[in-house]
Amino acid sequence: MNNRPLIGVIGGTGALGAALARRWAKAGEPVLIGSRDGARAAQAAETLQAELGAQVGHGSNEDVAARSQILVVTVPWAAQADTLEQIREHAAGKLVIDTTVPLVPPKVMRVQVPEEGSAGLRAKAILGDDVTVATAFHNVAADKLARDGDLDCDVLIFSDDKDAREETGRLVVSAGLRGFQAGSLANSIAAEAMTSLLIFINKTYKIAGAGIRITGC
Amino acid sequence: MNNRPLIGVIGGTGALGAALARRWAKAGEPVLIGSRDGARAAQAAETLQAELGAQVGHGSNEDVAARSQILVVTVPWAAQADTLEQIREHAAGKLVIDTTVPLVPPKVMRVQVPEEGSAGLRAKAILGDDVTVATAFHNVAADKLARDGDLDCDVLIFSDDKDAREETGRLVVSAGLRGFQAGSLANSIAAEAMTSLLIFINKTYKIAGAGIRITGC
Repeated sequence: MNNRPLIGVIGGTGALGAALARRWAKAGEPVLIGSRDGARAAQAAETLQAELGAQVGHGSNEDVAARSQILVVTVPWAAQADTLEQIREHAAGKLVIDTTVPLVPPKVMRVQVPEEGSAGLRAKAILGDDVTVATAFHNVAADKLARDGDLDCDVLIFSDDKDAREETGRLVVSAGLRGFQAGSLANSIAAEAMTSLLIFINKTYKIAGAGIRITGC
Repeated sequence: MNNRPLIGVIGGTGALGAALARRWAKAGEPVLIGSRDGARAAQAAETLQAELGAQVGHGSNEDVAARSQILVVTVPWAAQADTLEQIREHAAGKLVIDTTVPLVPPKVMRVQVPEEGSAGLRAKAILGDDVTVATAFHNVAADKLARDGDLDCDVLIFSDDKDAREETGRLVVSAGLRGFQAGSLANSIAAEAMTSLLIFINKTYKIAGAGIRITGC
C-alpha cells in the first residue's frame, strides 16, 4: 500500500468494475474489490494478484465501502438504487464515483432519462448531502478496457464539486484514459444517454465497441 | 434547379442556417432561405448568389415552408415552438429536419431536458402526425461550418422514421460532413445535451469549437 486513497470498486466483479480495478492495480493504486457475493470478490482479487503481483483486497460491497476512501460504483441500472442504499452509511464524507448508465433491457438502444434528470443526480438523491458524487466511465467498452493498451474513447467527468471532478480526472488518467471535465451532475445525462446511441451505432454499422472522442483540442 | 428536393432553411439568416444553406447551394442542392424578416432573407440569398453563382431563392419562413419539399429548422430554443407553429400547415406530408438545441441563456453550459424528452420530440408534438421529423447538426460549430473545408466533428441523426434518417444522412454528406444514424427522436437528447458539454469544455480548456467524433468504425 502507499498513501494514495484506497479505491473500493463496488460491483467489482462485473465487466466494467473488474477492468477498472485491474487497470488501477496495475498503475499502483490501492484497490479493494467489492461484490454482493464476497466469495466472488475474493476470487477476482486472487486472479488479479496472481496476474499482477499487486496486493488487491476484497470483501462484500458494504465491507469494501466501509474500508475505502473513494468508492467507484459499477453496477447495472436495475441495481443502482439498492446498491447505493446498502453503502450509504459507509459513504459519508467520501467521494462516490458512479458509472451507472440508465439502460433498460431489452430496449438498450433507446435513451431513458431518469426522473431525477440523470443517473448521477439519482445517485446524489439517494446518497444525500454528506456524500460527494461524481460520474464517469459511461462510454468506454468494458471488453476493450479489460485489455491493455490505449482506448480510442474519451471519458466525460461530471460533478457539482470541482475538487471531485479533479480527483476523478486523476483516476481516469491512472486508468490510462483521456478525460474531460464536462460539468455538473445534470450534464451527466449527455454521456449516460450517449451509451444507447453507441449501442445503436454498433448495431447499425456492424462495428464492435464504438466510442466518442472530443475534438478541437 | 434540378430534380433534387428543394430545401427550405427556416431561420436561414442565422449562423447555422446560413452556413448550411451555403454548403448545400455550393453542392448543387436547390435551396431557399427563409427568415422572419423577408428582406434579410433576400439579402442573404443575394450574398450567396454573388459568391457562388448559384441560384438561391428566399422568402418569409412561411413562404419558404410552403414552397420547399424539405424544411430545415435552424432557430434558437426560445423561438422553436413559435416557428414550428408558423410553418406547421405548410409542413404536412414533408420532412422537417430540426436542429434545435435546448440551450437556456445564460446557463448554456447546463443541460436542460425538455418536458417532452428532447427538442426533437417537442418538434414532433407541435408538428403532428402528418409531418415526418428528423433531427441533426446539433454539435457542429456554425463558424467552422461557415468556412470551406472538413470539420473534425460528426453529425448524429435521429428520427422515428428510417427513410427520414436516410434522407437526412444524404443532406449531411452533401454538406461535407460525416453522419451517423443514432436512433429515435427520444435519443436526440444525447446530441442536444452534448452541446452544453462542448460549451463547458470550450470554456474549461480554453479551446474554440470542440466537437465530437464517433470512433471504432
